[in-house]
Amino acid sequence: MKVRLLTLLALLAAAALPAAPPVELKQAVRSYREGHDRQIVQELADLVSLRNVASNRADIQRNADAMLALLHRHGIEGRLLTAATRDGQTAPPAVFAEVSNPKAKRTIVFYAHYDGQPADAADWGGQDPWKPVLRTGPRGPETKDVDLANLANAPSPLPAEWRLYGRSTSDDKAPIVAVLAALDALRAAGVPPSVNIKFFFEGEEEAGSPHLKDILTAHAGLLKADCWILADGPVHQSRKLQVVFGARGVTDVEMTVYGPSHALHSGHYGNWAPNPAALLVQLLAGLRGPNGEIRIEDFYRDVRPLSESEKQAAAAMPPVEDALRKELELAWTEGDPAGTGRLQDLVMQPALNLRGLQSAQVGKGARNAIPTDASASIDFRLVPDQTPERVHELTEAHLKKQGYWIVHEEPDAATRLAHPRIVRLVWGTGYPGARTSMDLPASRAVLRAIETGWGPVLRVPMLGGSVPVYVFNETMQVPIIALPIANHDNNQHAAHENLRLQNLWDGIEVYAALFAKLQESWP
Amino acid sequence: MKVRLLTLLALLAAAALPAAPPVELKQAVRSYREGHDRQIVQELADLVSLRNVASNRADIQRNADAMLALLHRHGIEGRLLTAATRDGQTAPPAVFAEVSNPKAKRTIVFYAHYDGQPADAADWGGQDPWKPVLRTGPRGPETKDVDLANLANAPSPLPAEWRLYGRSTSDDKAPIVAVLAALDALRAAGVPPSVNIKFFFEGEEEAGSPHLKDILTAHAGLLKADCWILADGPVHQSRKLQVVFGARGVTDVEMTVYGPSHALHSGHYGNWAPNPAALLVQLLAGLRGPNGEIRIEDFYRDVRPLSESEKQAAAAMPPVEDALRKELELAWTEGDPAGTGRLQDLVMQPALNLRGLQSAQVGKGARNAIPTDASASIDFRLVPDQTPERVHELTEAHLKKQGYWIVHEEPDAATRLAHPRIVRLVWGTGYPGARTSMDLPASRAVLRAIETGWGPVLRVPMLGGSVPVYVFNETMQVPIIALPIANHDNNQHAAHENLRLQNLWDGIEVYAALFAKLQESWP
Repeated sequence: MKVRLLTLLALLAAAALPAAPPVELKQAVRSYREGHDRQIVQELADLVSLRNVASNRADIQRNADAMLALLHRHGIEGRLLTAATRDGQTAPPAVFAEVSNPKAKRTIVFYAHYDGQPADAADWGGQDPWKPVLRTGPRGPETKDVDLANLANAPSPLPAEWRLYGRSTSDDKAPIVAVLAALDALRAAGVPPSVNIKFFFEGEEEAGSPHLKDILTAHAGLLKADCWILADGPVHQSRKLQVVFGARGVTDVEMTVYGPSHALHSGHYGNWAPNPAALLVQLLAGLRGPNGEIRIEDFYRDVRPLSESEKQAAAAMPPVEDALRKELELAWTEGDPAGTGRLQDLVMQPALNLRGLQSAQVGKGARNAIPTDASASIDFRLVPDQTPERVHELTEAHLKKQGYWIVHEEPDAATRLAHPRIVRLVWGTGYPGARTSMDLPASRAVLRAIETGWGPVLRVPMLGGSVPVYVFNETMQVPIIALPIANHDNNQHAAHENLRLQNLWDGIEVYAALFAKLQESWP
Repeated sequence: MKVRLLTLLALLAAAALPAAPPVELKQAVRSYREGHDRQIVQELADLVSLRNVASNRADIQRNADAMLALLHRHGIEGRLLTAATRDGQTAPPAVFAEVSNPKAKRTIVFYAHYDGQPADAADWGGQDPWKPVLRTGPRGPETKDVDLANLANAPSPLPAEWRLYGRSTSDDKAPIVAVLAALDALRAAGVPPSVNIKFFFEGEEEAGSPHLKDILTAHAGLLKADCWILADGPVHQSRKLQVVFGARGVTDVEMTVYGPSHALHSGHYGNWAPNPAALLVQLLAGLRGPNGEIRIEDFYRDVRPLSESEKQAAAAMPPVEDALRKELELAWTEGDPAGTGRLQDLVMQPALNLRGLQSAQVGKGARNAIPTDASASIDFRLVPDQTPERVHELTEAHLKKQGYWIVHEEPDAATRLAHPRIVRLVWGTGYPGARTSMDLPASRAVLRAIETGWGPVLRVPMLGGSVPVYVFNETMQVPIIALPIANHDNNQHAAHENLRLQNLWDGIEVYAALFAKLQESWP
């Protein structure tokens, strides 16, 4: 399935991809990379060989030390940043380093993370997720393994469609290797970075960044900058590079409504004993319409309108919809039942996703009984300036208006006997969405630097998915812009995570361009 | 739970139960029973000792032979009725016998069944379900087992609250033993049955009666009668005897609606890719309201209005509602949200029970994805003159009107791409409801005979549960009336099936009264 989708999108992208403008520096960086591609891939493979499960303190410390050694090999002296935790320990370290240019007027922080998701060799077809494997393409009968110890025998330059498989190849060790190669390439070309660059490599992103805010706050002075560049996530499905200015936030809730205290014969009691599944479908139908419209009063009131730049950027996104619809076997899409709704437009709105329903059993297990309860699981995607707290409030107010008595624990008999309609809500935490204005000087500068130094990229006002950008926003109070490089089909968080080499090459070039051109683009 | 409910209802019943009128014959029957109670219980225990799984042909044949021997011991010569099956075999036999009175003007058929549900000793706390156990009350710490081989030492008469545990003690071998004891008691009192009695003991009721219609049709002449008395099912929850004139029919359907062909990240695609759970809740909310109201157009058009007798009978049913609501921890009931709706009134209407919901996962298993499909399982309870076929038609017409494309198999890609709204329906078969008019001469006569000969009983126009009475209705074209005797807390179809001795005693008396008084009650 996935492969078919990717094929369609890649074909579509190949047709639409404009040629990058000829830039002398870009060519210099490319030549450097072609001359050093074996070392670069080996460096990433070595880094991937270190197990880096986010929740494993020993893993993280070993990786942090390796990061310092890696920086040192590239002529950069780093240090570890931590913060006191609530239980008197210290948080897993972030790696900090700085590359200064005395003439620079601007400072950016380049963010990536060196920790990774857990992984199990059993899911990886026997491959140890931390023993990287280089393949001649995406896993399949037509691709071969390449001996990493004998890269000297490989074609030169290394073919762009080869992929390195292993945990964190793409999420998120590749940007670290790419940015160091970019600096090496600039140095080789005699072009110093035009801005001061601070590195902040987090060590617990995949554990939910529990201490990120503490570390950012504790080292606010050290991390002072004009802009953060987040190097995490994938490029667009069309394989085009994208500059991303925000992401939706998220929160979730489990809802349960109640019927009789034990299941009843639907013949003897049907029509008399309340059916909780029937209550639930009414409740849910009142929360969200079939076209995605959220029916909770005032739900859209906190939605920040899109700017002209954001609308234009969304309109310029590649037309992936027809290919997606075909691949997903959909005769229609939400938002615009005529089927012409643009994906980017719709994911910049809040969403209520009914991610699960459960009551008694369907199919072979179904029996003629009135269920005791019925549950739904919902995730909300939030956009600025919505907050999880406000969404919780509005949802509860809406349900109260529908006559529901809201509880947060399993209701006892007295509660059940006192209230005809009871809904139990178990809220997840979540976080707000974030969107850096594309009209800010920093945003314009980043785009200009990349497009003059590298070539056209997609401008994405906001990802539909959720990234806790708000932590940086709230703590650092400077523009946050993401410039991801991983292939979108990298199997992030799953088995067979991989990095397509062309994405590593593009990353090196685009980071070099950004560093070289940012000062002149930022008056 | 169940025990508490039963206690409440029993208390309520004890308070409301009127004294039976003093009738000389009733006393004679009772004296006979008190003098023979050990033999009667032993006879039931012996019958229960024969494994009788409905689907096991050897079991059924062994039980059929035992039935003939039993009848013979009571001075009645029976025979086996069968019919050719579609595959050229013969159907499992029904047992037929006849007790004639040359002066009788009316003939009734007394129906019971000797087959039973499967049972597993593991579920019965180690008791072999076909090794009956007599206990001094409902299973629990306070009751003791009584040695069936030493009943001579038991109190005389046997205590009414003792219970015999074993498969088919109540469902449905007790009525067979009761009816033979009733005839013995009448004989001992010198009172011959006033009507001709034909016995029809079915051998595959618990297998869904697949050959019942064939056997009834093949032996229509032999089975000719003025009325059928069905001796199956329980008495009212208040422990009062009830004469039942009908039962709701039933049909069921599995519904599935479709989203994307594979689950999608709810961030990246939420608001664009259709959410099947959101479609399903709209669809279901449109089928049935929270008060049980069915919103399918014309659904109520085939509902036969209740007669005055039926309304009066329903109004006279014991007020179980408050006790039930308390037991079930319900602050309200459907039909009448003020909470004053009568159970009997509501179960005489058709019902749409949402018996299951399923889409992806809720709770810990929930993930932020748009599900590929969402399913509901529904059972309909039907009343005369609705038919399953008509309900299927009306439901499909309703869904078509809502824009749904109906399929009965998993839709292929071309179908999915062609139709925005697709619902897959998998209908069960089911059967119609049945209701014998309480105003028919036969109905009046049965009630009069029981009430003059035994005492007041509840008159139930229609059970909420489903019994395939329609087979008798359609085939025999005579009034069908049920007179069940088993305690309602008999664990029918489940582990620890049991018969409360008082119910056996009541059965003997009420059957004797019916047989003695029916002729004079039927002008």
